[in-house]
Amino acid sequence: VPHDRVLRAIAAELGAAGVVTDRDRVASHTTDWTGRFTGEAAALVRPSSTEEVAAVLARCHEAGVAVVPQGGNTGLVGGGVPRHGEIVLHLGRLRGVEPVDEGALQVTVSAGEPLAGLQAAAADAGLAYAVDLAARDTATVGGTIATNAGGLHVLRWGGTRQQLMGIEAVLADGRVVSHLGGLVKDNTGYDLAGLLCGSEGTLAVVTRARLRLVPRHEARVVAMVGFVDVAAAVGAVARWRRRVASLTAVEVVLAAGVDLVCEVGGLPPPLASRPPVLVLVEAADRDDPTAAVASAVEATDGVLDVAVATNEREAAALWRYREDHTLAINTLGPPHKLDVTLPMAALARFAAEVPDAVTAVEPGARTWLFGHLGDGNLHVNVTDLAPDDDRVDDVVLRLVASLGGSISAEHGIGRAKRRWLDLVRSPAEIDAMRAIKHALDPRGILNPGVLVPERTA
Amino acid sequence: VPHDRVLRAIAAELGAAGVVTDRDRVASHTTDWTGRFTGEAAALVRPSSTEEVAAVLARCHEAGVAVVPQGGNTGLVGGGVPRHGEIVLHLGRLRGVEPVDEGALQVTVSAGEPLAGLQAAAADAGLAYAVDLAARDTATVGGTIATNAGGLHVLRWGGTRQQLMGIEAVLADGRVVSHLGGLVKDNTGYDLAGLLCGSEGTLAVVTRARLRLVPRHEARVVAMVGFVDVAAAVGAVARWRRRVASLTAVEVVLAAGVDLVCEVGGLPPPLASRPPVLVLVEAADRDDPTAAVASAVEATDGVLDVAVATNEREAAALWRYREDHTLAINTLGPPHKLDVTLPMAALARFAAEVPDAVTAVEPGARTWLFGHLGDGNLHVNVTDLAPDDDRVDDVVLRLVASLGGSISAEHGIGRAKRRWLDLVRSPAEIDAMRAIKHALDPRGILNPGVLVPERTA
Repeated sequence: VPHDRVLRAIAAELGAAGVVTDRDRVASHTTDWTGRFTGEAAALVRPSSTEEVAAVLARCHEAGVAVVPQGGNTGLVGGGVPRHGEIVLHLGRLRGVEPVDEGALQVTVSAGEPLAGLQAAAADAGLAYAVDLAARDTATVGGTIATNAGGLHVLRWGGTRQQLMGIEAVLADGRVVSHLGGLVKDNTGYDLAGLLCGSEGTLAVVTRARLRLVPRHEARVVAMVGFVDVAAAVGAVARWRRRVASLTAVEVVLAAGVDLVCEVGGLPPPLASRPPVLVLVEAADRDDPTAAVASAVEATDGVLDVAVATNEREAAALWRYREDHTLAINTLGPPHKLDVTLPMAALARFAAEVPDAVTAVEPGARTWLFGHLGDGNLHVNVTDLAPDDDRVDDVVLRLVASLGGSISAEHGIGRAKRRWLDLVRSPAEIDAMRAIKHALDPRGILNPGVLVPERTA
Repeated sequence: VPHDRVLRAIAAELGAAGVVTDRDRVASHTTDWTGRFTGEAAALVRPSSTEEVAAVLARCHEAGVAVVPQGGNTGLVGGGVPRHGEIVLHLGRLRGVEPVDEGALQVTVSAGEPLAGLQAAAADAGLAYAVDLAARDTATVGGTIATNAGGLHVLRWGGTRQQLMGIEAVLADGRVVSHLGGLVKDNTGYDLAGLLCGSEGTLAVVTRARLRLVPRHEARVVAMVGFVDVAAAVGAVARWRRRVASLTAVEVVLAAGVDLVCEVGGLPPPLASRPPVLVLVEAADRDDPTAAVASAVEATDGVLDVAVATNEREAAALWRYREDHTLAINTLGPPHKLDVTLPMAALARFAAEVPDAVTAVEPGARTWLFGHLGDGNLHVNVTDLAPDDDRVDDVVLRLVASLGGSISAEHGIGRAKRRWLDLVRSPAEIDAMRAIKHALDPRGILNPGVLVPERTA
């Protein structure tokens, strides 16, 4: 059995603590946190340095043993859990944030550091890390890079790839590539860092990263704006983006979702006029952005009603109408969650058509829409539907693709959406991805079954 | 001869106007505009559509005929001119800017469109394209993508890769990959657009691009700040970047260069105190950024003297002290031009050491330093040196690399710097680039001899 030989060799290099085969300890790494994706692992391998990662991959490459890299195991598409006896390569011991480079406004971080650790180090230097998401205490920096994590501030600062100034990674054969100088202007060959970002552990294992930091903005305004319809809300986004450089969030919710949130949470309605579409807008800057936001909202067509938070407590209260959607919808049973992006020009049409498309497949199912309107990113939740019934997923993703949208806004493809990738990527694109995958991982040991579709005959 | 057969087949597809073999007409495409790089071409091929580019590459791939893609031929590292009888694939007929998508703040542009055409289309929509450079009337959008062009506003908006929301390109075998939806959040596989950006025509031929646009800022402030030394100027950059979000340029010049500019142009000195180091700072915003810049400068250590432009004429006058450096230095004879980035922490040391490093090789040579201080990007010009004597280039690039800098900030590697790439990229990185190159261009027909070093025995 090649696994036994390889695991013995790895234990010899990493020490006994580096290889875990105890079933109970391994179990928490073989199922994702939603419980939807699960599998068997040969062992859990826990390197504590880049050199140890390199040693592990060199052994696995030589023996052709498959490896599933894993960070905080907070992914939503099954990209970080094993299927059929792979080795789980857990990066959690690669911790540490180096001192913030205040001259360059950058920092170098190890892959296993939780996102919150990076955020805290940035805050200590009077700065911020631009990417933030709900799983911040568990999700690792390496995982956010492997998945090009989006999160709450993409509108203002871009996603993870836009923060990435350099990378250290171990290639499939155990060789280390390292380019952590963090130079903003550096045209010296292909952008390996950008290529690895979002490759979901299929091209290399990220071990360290050089990340840019952004200014910390203390002055904030939050407002809830009621619109006559989705089209009016979409029209407002472009106008606001032109006028208010400091926008940090433009989030959309619909009346039905807000009613459910109010009912579950015992909250009053956010706007007295009970508009059909509500948009939460937030801006943050060095100087108070309230006047800029107010004047932009005032000049907007289709607005029915506005509430502006005048303090942090009121701001938090407005955010609850958006943030409590997940909680409120879960009270109806586990929903199907689809994370999609629509072109702005097609977003209103999608919002109008998707509920009918769902009920055409399953008459009793209910569709809930909310999300990051500023990025065109909608979370489509469908309740009153069997958990394993993916006919609805199929119909929704096909509708998204037919409108020029993306079947994965921020969660990635993983195992969950691999069979639908050809809806949005042509055979030539998928072949190009396969060629790159084969070039960097010729034996196919890195995260097999994730992202890149199998070649069909 | 394979070329004749291939050229006949291409002429059959593109029409007679698509293949040029007339020596005089071909000649202007076989030498770069500096005159430093020149070679022979089998022919000039001028496709007028993506389909024609695909047909050309399919033929060349089949026959193993090498192709050099060329845009406006304004590159500085010999990456766009032929060497030994390749076909020059000129993209100049792929013109056109599609209507600006005002909802998404994006536009789709054909590769052969000059940068100025894109800028004009953005301006007509009340927006701006973030990348600007002196060659704007000739340089093509495709060329700026192939080289990840930097330019004047990297500090504020990033380089070309940061503007690129999607790409259409023809692979070496003639297959077209197209992903022009411009979705901001779209995690559906490897970032092919980012990989092709900066690949210098070695992986595919870019035919169209989807680019983000940015707000147009009319309120501008320009100031010249005198410092006691380079270290003080470097220290100011991080402080200003934290305090002034609207910074668009932070440029450095030295007293010797300013004296030369004044002498050649008959200008008065910009600052009465004649400081050894001068920094031009510019900010632009919706609202007048003068107060923000003034307060940031006031709080800065090491400042000797400040001049603030109070109108556009004075702003242009201050910019001349920076912009006329190229002209003034050229009066001393053709300089060696080296385009490098230093880590902020090493920049002052580099500025102190590089003149001595140059005179150690060639005692009569003079070194002139100026550049984009905000990005750590210095232009090192060396005069009083034979044009072909690259011992100085070698010494300077080695000093840059030893300090953790980049041997190419924005111009790229091309043919000019290929032999030095291993100063800043490890064998593992170069092997990874070679593997990607081979995966996407298995017959090596795309821009041979550019960027990726030959494998050594």
